[in-house]
Amino acid sequence: MTTKEVPGLNDRALILVDEMQRCSAELGIKRGSVVGSRVIDAGIDSRGGLRAGLMTAQIAMANLGTVSLVPNPDPSQMSPAVAVNINHPVAACVVCQHDGWVIQEEETGYKTRGSGPFRAAYGREELYEIFGFRERTGCAVGVVETQSMPSGALVHDLSIKCGVQQHHVALICVNPDSLAGSVLTASRSVQWTLMKLHMLNFNIKRIVSGYGICPLGAVGGGLNRAVGQAYDQLIYHSKVTLYAVGDDETLASVVTQLPSNTSSLYGQRAETLLRLDQDPTCQIDAGLMAPASVCIQNIETGVCHQSDM
Amino acid sequence: MTTKEVPGLNDRALILVDEMQRCSAELGIKRGSVVGSRVIDAGIDSRGGLRAGLMTAQIAMANLGTVSLVPNPDPSQMSPAVAVNINHPVAACVVCQHDGWVIQEEETGYKTRGSGPFRAAYGREELYEIFGFRERTGCAVGVVETQSMPSGALVHDLSIKCGVQQHHVALICVNPDSLAGSVLTASRSVQWTLMKLHMLNFNIKRIVSGYGICPLGAVGGGLNRAVGQAYDQLIYHSKVTLYAVGDDETLASVVTQLPSNTSSLYGQRAETLLRLDQDPTCQIDAGLMAPASVCIQNIETGVCHQSDM
Amino acid sequence: MTTKEVPGLNDRALILVDEMQRCSAELGIKRGSVVGSRVIDAGIDSRGGLRAGLMTAQIAMANLGTVSLVPNPDPSQMSPAVAVNINHPVAACVVCQHDGWVIQEEETGYKTRGSGPFRAAYGREELYEIFGFRERTGCAVGVVETQSMPSGALVHDLSIKCGVQQHHVALICVNPDSLAGSVLTASRSVQWTLMKLHMLNFNIKRIVSGYGICPLGAVGGGLNRAVGQAYDQLIYHSKVTLYAVGDDETLASVVTQLPSNTSSLYGQRAETLLRLDQDPTCQIDAGLMAPASVCIQNIETGVCHQSDM
Repeated sequence: MTTKEVPGLNDRALILVDEMQRCSAELGIKRGSVVGSRVIDAGIDSRGGLRAGLMTAQIAMANLGTVSLVPNPDPSQMSPAVAVNINHPVAACVVCQHDGWVIQEEETGYKTRGSGPFRAAYGREELYEIFGFRERTGCAVGVVETQSMPSGALVHDLSIKCGVQQHHVALICVNPDSLAGSVLTASRSVQWTLMKLHMLNFNIKRIVSGYGICPLGAVGGGLNRAVGQAYDQLIYHSKVTLYAVGDDETLASVVTQLPSNTSSLYGQRAETLLRLDQDPTCQIDAGLMAPASVCIQNIETGVCHQSDM
Repeated sequence: MTTKEVPGLNDRALILVDEMQRCSAELGIKRGSVVGSRVIDAGIDSRGGLRAGLMTAQIAMANLGTVSLVPNPDPSQMSPAVAVNINHPVAACVVCQHDGWVIQEEETGYKTRGSGPFRAAYGREELYEIFGFRERTGCAVGVVETQSMPSGALVHDLSIKCGVQQHHVALICVNPDSLAGSVLTASRSVQWTLMKLHMLNFNIKRIVSGYGICPLGAVGGGLNRAVGQAYDQLIYHSKVTLYAVGDDETLASVVTQLPSNTSSLYGQRAETLLRLDQDPTCQIDAGLMAPASVCIQNIETGVCHQSDM
Repeated sequence: MTTKEVPGLNDRALILVDEMQRCSAELGIKRGSVVGSRVIDAGIDSRGGLRAGLMTAQIAMANLGTVSLVPNPDPSQMSPAVAVNINHPVAACVVCQHDGWVIQEEETGYKTRGSGPFRAAYGREELYEIFGFRERTGCAVGVVETQSMPSGALVHDLSIKCGVQQHHVALICVNPDSLAGSVLTASRSVQWTLMKLHMLNFNIKRIVSGYGICPLGAVGGGLNRAVGQAYDQLIYHSKVTLYAVGDDETLASVVTQLPSNTSSLYGQRAETLLRLDQDPTCQIDAGLMAPASVCIQNIETGVCHQSDM
C-alpha cells in the first residue's frame, strides 16, 4: 500500500477528532485551544475514560482499524480487554500508531512521545525513509502521552515541523496514568508485534492484516507504575494473529524470535525496568516489547506459524 | 458530573427513539401513539428481539454507555451475554437506568416500573434529592417493563408529572418475558452494583466508570419465571469492574459486602423469591441484587479490590 | 414476517454496497464496472481483508443482522471468530444469505454460487415456493464466491433474471481463499443451522432470532483447502443459539438430529470431502453442514433444548 492507496491519513483522523469534540461532555474530556490549535485534554485535568481511550486509539491509527472493548479472554480475570482489527498494518500501526516521535521543548524540559498521523506529516523518523509514507497534508493530527499540556511555543513548533498552519493542528493529550491512557497502551498489541518484527529485520510489508487483544492494566499510582502495568499486560497477556504473504521458511524462523519470552528480561515487571519519572520518553528493552503469544498465518500457503503458548 | 456537564439526558435518549422507530420492521417492534405520545411496543403484541433490547437498554441509560451482545464468557455455556461500558455511572445507571419509578393507575390497577431519563424529568424519587440530576426538559423518554400497553389516562398523567406536553413523551414498553426484556435486565450489571453500593452507604460519586457483563436468562414460561431467570444470571454469573477514586480503606471494606453471595438468600433461585404475578413491581432482597463477582479499581492509587470469586 | 414487514431486501443491501465503495481503499477492495453494473472485487485481484469480509457478510444477509469479529471463545486458540446476531432468521439467512443460487455460463464453463438478496429478486429456487419472499425490486445485490470475475454476458444474464436494469445490479465477488472469504463462511453459523433444520422438515418459521459464533479457518493453499478449513470450523467449533416458538416435543426431538456429529461423515476433514477444483459449486453431505453445538430456546415455555457438547 502506498499513501495514494489510502489518501489523507491526517484527514481520516481529523473526522474522529471532530466527533470526539462533539461528544466531549459524554467522553469526559476537555476541548481547548493553544495558539489556535485544537488541543484535547483526555485524562490530564479532565477525567477521560474508557471510551475516550477507544476513540484516541482509533485516531492514533488514522481510523485504519477498529478498536473495541471486549471481555477478558481469561475467564478468571475481571478487567476488560482491548481488541484491535487492522487492515493496513504498516500504515495503521507503524506509520501512524507507533509512538516514535520524541517531542521536546529545550527551554522547559517538556518531553513526550507522539503517535498518530502527524508523524507522517513530519516524516523525519527513520521509518519514513524505509516505508515512504510521508504525507503533504492540510492538517496534522497527533496523540501525545503526557501528564501536562503542551505550551504554545511547542504547538507552534509542531505546526511548522508538520508543514501546516497552527489552526490546522489537532492534538489529543492523553495521561498514560488514566483510563484513556490504559486503553491506548492496550491497543498497541499489533503495533508492538510489527515493531518487533521490523527489529528482527523481517519485511513487515508482508503483513497484510492483524488482530490483537490485550487486557487493560491497572491505572493509578503514578506514571511509571501505570505504564508498567499496561506494558505487563502486553508482555505477559496479549495475543496477536497476523496474516502474511511470502515464504514459510522466514515466517517459521521469525515466529520463534517474536514473543516477549525470547527476551532475557522476560519475567521482570515492566515497572522495574522503566524510569519514566526521570525520562518520560524512555523505553524498555525492545525485545521485551512483544506479544505474549503470536500466530502468523500465511494466507498464500495456508500454514499457521505459532509461537509456543 | 452535574446535569450541566451532560446536558439533555432526555434529548440524548430521544435521538435513539427516532432511530428505533425508523428501524421498527427490522427490530420487530410496533410504533404506536397514545394520546399523541409515541409509545413503542417491544415484545408485548410485537415480537421484539435481541436488537430491540440492546437499543432499549441504551435508551434507558440516556445513551451514556454502550450495550453490546458478546459471547458467553463461560465457554461451556451457549447463551450470549450483554456487555456494558459506562462512562458516567451515576448519571447513566442511577439517574436514568435504575427502574426506580413505580408507576400506577389507581382506576385500573395497572402497575409497572419505569426506567430511563424521564425519571429525571419527574425527579420525585429520593435519589434525586441526593444526586441532584433533576432535568427541566422539552421531552421525556422512558422505558416501562410491562405486559400490557399503558392507557391514555396514564400517559397523560406521566406527561404532567414530567412537565412536558403529551406529544413530547416517548415510551418504550418492554415485556420482561421477551428477548428484548431479557437483554434489558442483563444490561443492569453495573446498575445493580451501584445501587448495592449506595445501599451500603458508599458514596457512588466516587465511581467514575464501569464495565459489566451478564449472560441472557432464558425467556418464556411467564413473567415471574423469565424475570427470575434473568435475575439469576445477574446474581450468579455477572462480572463487574468499577473504576473509583478516593481512599482504599473504604473500597477494601465495601468490596467484601458487595457481591450477591453476601446475602443470606444467596443460593436460592430468584423465581422463588419474586411474586410478580401478584405485584409486578415487587423486588427481591436488595442485598441479593448484586453482581456475582466484582472488582473495584482505584485509579488514583492503582490498587484493585476484588471480591472472592 | 412477510416481505412487506421488512420491505426492500435489495434496497437495504445497496446502502452497504455504497458504503463499501466509499471505503474501498481502506477495505482493500477494487471497485469496478461490468456492462454498467457495479462489480466489487474483494480478494480476487485485490487483497480484501477481514473488514471487507464483515461488510460482505452483512450485505449477504441484507443488513438484517450484525456481523462482528470477536476473540476466539476457546482461550487456547489464536484465531478470531465471527459472531452473528440475527433478528429475522428466515429472511436474513435463508432468503438472502444462503448460497443457494448456482450461477453458470455455458459458453465459458464459469460456475459459482450466489448469495444475497438478488436471490429473492430471481426467486426461482425452491425455497421461494415455500417461504414466499420473492421481491420485485429496482436493484439487485448479490454476493458471488469465485476466483475470477464474471463476464459481461453473465452479468447481463443476471440482470435479466433479477428483472432489473444492468446498471442497477451490484455484485460483490469474494475469493473463498482470502481473508474476506474466510469471514464470509464463518458468518454462516446460524444459516447452516436453519438449513439443516429445514432439511429435517422442521418449520423454520418458528425460529425468531439467532446468535452464532464460529472461528475463522486458515486461508491459503488453494480453493479446496481454504473452504475445507472454513467448513471445519463450522462443523467442529461453531456454537449457535436459536430462539423459537411452538411446542417443546418437536424441539426436543429435532435438536438431537441437528449438530454435525449426527452425520456419519463426522470426524472427517471437509477438505477431503470437497471437490471444488472440479466443481466450484459442489457441496458436502448436508447432514454435516451443521453447527458443532446448538441450543434452541423456546421463548414461549422457557425450556432450553441443547445438543450434547
